[in-house]
Amino acid sequence: MQLEAIYHRSKQGWSYAYDHETVHIRIRTKKNDVAAVDLIAVDKYAFERMTEYVPMRKFTSDALFDYWEAAYKPPFRRLRYAFRFVDDQEQWFLTERGFRKELSKEYFESFEYPYLNKVDIFEPPAWVKEAVFYQIFPERFANGDTSNDPENVLPWGGEPTPTNFFGGDLEGVIQHLDHLNELGITAIYFTPVFEATTNHKYDTRDYMKIDPQFGSNEKLKELVEACHARGIRVLLDAVFNHAGKTFPPFVDVLEKGDQSAYKDWFYVREYPLRVEEGIPTYETFAFEPIMPKLNTEHPEVKEYLLEAARYWIEEIGIDGWRLDVANEVDHQFWREFRQVVKKANPQAYILGEIWHDSMAWLQGDQFDAVMNYPFTDAVNDFFAKQLGDAAEFASAIGTQLANYPQQATEAAFNLLDSHDTPRLLTLCDDDKRRMKLTSLFQFTHPGVPCIYYGDEVGLAGKGDPDCRRCMEWDVEKQDRELFEFYRDLIALRRNYEAMRSVNIRFLQAESDSRVLLYERRSESGERFLIAINASSEGTSIRAGEQFDGRSWQTKLSSDATIAHVGDALTIQLEAYGFAVLKQIN
Amino acid sequence: MQLEAIYHRSKQGWSYAYDHETVHIRIRTKKNDVAAVDLIAVDKYAFERMTEYVPMRKFTSDALFDYWEAAYKPPFRRLRYAFRFVDDQEQWFLTERGFRKELSKEYFESFEYPYLNKVDIFEPPAWVKEAVFYQIFPERFANGDTSNDPENVLPWGGEPTPTNFFGGDLEGVIQHLDHLNELGITAIYFTPVFEATTNHKYDTRDYMKIDPQFGSNEKLKELVEACHARGIRVLLDAVFNHAGKTFPPFVDVLEKGDQSAYKDWFYVREYPLRVEEGIPTYETFAFEPIMPKLNTEHPEVKEYLLEAARYWIEEIGIDGWRLDVANEVDHQFWREFRQVVKKANPQAYILGEIWHDSMAWLQGDQFDAVMNYPFTDAVNDFFAKQLGDAAEFASAIGTQLANYPQQATEAAFNLLDSHDTPRLLTLCDDDKRRMKLTSLFQFTHPGVPCIYYGDEVGLAGKGDPDCRRCMEWDVEKQDRELFEFYRDLIALRRNYEAMRSVNIRFLQAESDSRVLLYERRSESGERFLIAINASSEGTSIRAGEQFDGRSWQTKLSSDATIAHVGDALTIQLEAYGFAVLKQIN
Repeated sequence: MQLEAIYHRSKQGWSYAYDHETVHIRIRTKKNDVAAVDLIAVDKYAFERMTEYVPMRKFTSDALFDYWEAAYKPPFRRLRYAFRFVDDQEQWFLTERGFRKELSKEYFESFEYPYLNKVDIFEPPAWVKEAVFYQIFPERFANGDTSNDPENVLPWGGEPTPTNFFGGDLEGVIQHLDHLNELGITAIYFTPVFEATTNHKYDTRDYMKIDPQFGSNEKLKELVEACHARGIRVLLDAVFNHAGKTFPPFVDVLEKGDQSAYKDWFYVREYPLRVEEGIPTYETFAFEPIMPKLNTEHPEVKEYLLEAARYWIEEIGIDGWRLDVANEVDHQFWREFRQVVKKANPQAYILGEIWHDSMAWLQGDQFDAVMNYPFTDAVNDFFAKQLGDAAEFASAIGTQLANYPQQATEAAFNLLDSHDTPRLLTLCDDDKRRMKLTSLFQFTHPGVPCIYYGDEVGLAGKGDPDCRRCMEWDVEKQDRELFEFYRDLIALRRNYEAMRSVNIRFLQAESDSRVLLYERRSESGERFLIAINASSEGTSIRAGEQFDGRSWQTKLSSDATIAHVGDALTIQLEAYGFAVLKQIN
Repeated sequence: MQLEAIYHRSKQGWSYAYDHETVHIRIRTKKNDVAAVDLIAVDKYAFERMTEYVPMRKFTSDALFDYWEAAYKPPFRRLRYAFRFVDDQEQWFLTERGFRKELSKEYFESFEYPYLNKVDIFEPPAWVKEAVFYQIFPERFANGDTSNDPENVLPWGGEPTPTNFFGGDLEGVIQHLDHLNELGITAIYFTPVFEATTNHKYDTRDYMKIDPQFGSNEKLKELVEACHARGIRVLLDAVFNHAGKTFPPFVDVLEKGDQSAYKDWFYVREYPLRVEEGIPTYETFAFEPIMPKLNTEHPEVKEYLLEAARYWIEEIGIDGWRLDVANEVDHQFWREFRQVVKKANPQAYILGEIWHDSMAWLQGDQFDAVMNYPFTDAVNDFFAKQLGDAAEFASAIGTQLANYPQQATEAAFNLLDSHDTPRLLTLCDDDKRRMKLTSLFQFTHPGVPCIYYGDEVGLAGKGDPDCRRCMEWDVEKQDRELFEFYRDLIALRRNYEAMRSVNIRFLQAESDSRVLLYERRSESGERFLIAINASSEGTSIRAGEQFDGRSWQTKLSSDATIAHVGDALTIQLEAYGFAVLKQIN
């Protein structure tokens, strides 16, 4: 047994409360190295009379490791535990003090999950894992009110540059909510809408005011109410890491230097504020002079931003916040932010923009979820860009499933593209078949899918600014077949609990192959097989004996043919073909 | 290279801010498997123009792993990083997306330490790592005022039972502060002093009042002031996990059941409150009916306890809190507790009683340190109980050093015994030689040593209640030779920075041997060699060529003879002998 490969520490993602009575315990072992793992669970104070051996379930794997999990309900909310590993040759125990051939009765040697305290449970809002998100870049979605157009507005549909304007606004969104309902969307994430100078509005002037080019605070309230009436929730973008160059406190520091009453609202290295060889003498987002970093440790800054956090939820009715550059703001600020937000609305969703390992923010005291870029990269690499093989892909997904507590996986924000990346269709070299496979995987994977506005009607675009093209509203120019596909995908996800559960198992994902077969199951017994041929040649998939003798119904497919050879389930897929099969008996 | 043995995730103990400008990055590899590890560090937003290769230092090892560390100062407080591993055969890179043969230029693959925000830095009070603690169980230290004796008080020095009283009080401590100064103590940790019914006072009646048997709030203030005048800090015991059976809100629930206004101050499973087959129908510490668990999620309970936390610091002047059963109270409570305590006194010490892995409390938002029981166990097993060999011992210590951030190691509360365990001398089968070795290791190890009252004069005692004997004040009956030894140990630790630094390196710690040789160094260049023979037979230690040709001065030793054979440093040690040598050129 490869003892050095085994990893467990208490808390973080390795032992955590899943709900008010259940603790999840996880451990990793070297891949295919251990036949069985047991969790040995005992009450902290009744070691002698309560000891249970709970078999652990291999819940995911990657190229190097198997990951095991047990869900355990400690009778008195407190738990000591150890592990037993068994293979053909040997048996080992692991306690907090290391590996043992025999399990000592010395109970202080065990690991502890000391107490399941309710307030510490990481509990994202229940609605999130049922949601289908749609991301809107407001300047480019729809111009519903020409009276608020910027002076230099260009005709709708022109080529986007970093600085031009096309007049999109909140009224435009209100006018097109039918489109979202038709698609099946249940939540919108808006990039920033507060007053700012740029078209993307990431350089906030006033956190308490909708940009006049987009409308007014009242208009947003109208939009939120219209959305809620249609079963759609609304998320705004909180750009709290930095302000804009026209933010009055920053203007004051620019003007008065260290005499400004606001000088400690920012991190100034040298006065007067200036840029030398591309590097501002004050801290900024990246090296961007128009985005001065806010000192979120300063009581006045905190008060100002937390009031904004409260106001838009409590007074305007939004359903949560997406947090821009979330991991560069201090943890202490986010902890206080969570208290304020959850007090205003316990069901508000707090979504951090983090491109990296986010465990430190996903423990219940800060965020509900993060934008799941590691997922994005893995899926786009394999399906869209046609990189790597099925084994590498399944390994990347397996690592992801192991990285976070189950509730973080359920609430993860799984995007494929955004205002920061090339559009999905363009990533797929305009090959709609590949685009469909990418989205199919997204919608049949645990976590919350998000569609970037326009993807559903075939909008293309390279990286920023090209990915911020005007929405296509001319039905003749929309790809309606693609729209129908997304509608079907969304319906599939919403109709079947199995699509939203965390139970995903790769049945075929081989090296040097680009064919995937995976299973999705729900707690209530739904069972799906999903076959995807991410290659340019047709293939035939033999599902395996365990699936024979059952009846299967095709819920969604390309032109795939499903052949039952005798009782054996065989799935024929053309190049870039797919099939979603539901077991019906 | 054993890739499966390598472990790193960002944050927690693996990457953390050590101070306002330094990030520590750590990684583990299989023991003796990798020749060199580099940290590849880059600014988050200037990937192309700033890339540094920083050699990592193997800072500790255990039986299975080597642990590597680099201290890096990111120029703009933000950091991306990756690792390079080199051995004779091959070279590997590790990014957040896994192992690579070549390092991709794709900068999103790297790990991140996204921003070094000051408020998030885990920063225990500076005085703590200089401190030498002394634990006092007030009922048994000294009876300075017979007017406050309990009715049933027994003559000083009788045999302790779970329920008897000997009249110790705060005035007694005040009268004996000379003893502590003579020894060199700089901080006292008192077990509980608030009003309660038992002799140990862990069943609080009133968190705002000193137990009348011990004195009054004014008397504690007098004691704190007397201590401060002598350079001694004072820590009290916060028993916030549970109250006592006479705590008025609990009495109210006992009487009125679910009609009590205080019913949500506790966790009641069934009314009326009772005990059935040894299990109370309400949550308690362990299954102890007189210790009802407090609902620290309840706003009124929080307000009451946090006011106590503030009061004793701000009004009485204590220097911090030891937190009883700290890991069964919710994290959220402790985060708020830290805010209150640090606001009252930024230099207050917050010390959690946790017997297990405490990483989840040692990240800057909760505790400054924990009672380091894994250290206690390792040291007592090897030196006191004579279990295991030197290799096993060094491995246990190595694991400990790897487990926590450096500042947690510096501030760790390293005790050998307490009111909860047998006394050290008794653990050593009354062998003073073994007792000295145990304490020598404690005082020459990183972290804060604590002496349990009376150990320094030869007090013995088995587990509770025998370990709570009355302090011996008759000088004739005190072991003054032992007292001198402790005085020397404390002086050694206080005189030399090397003894308090985290730089400890085992030079000899072999299997089947009970002889240890280790090195202690300070940043300023102090260098010590410490040799310990934890066996019943004399031994001769050849220090190794690297130490030859230097001059060494004995700072503390048993009857050890130090022989310089030519230029070669050889240390002769009798059974249970030791020598502390300082390099003087």
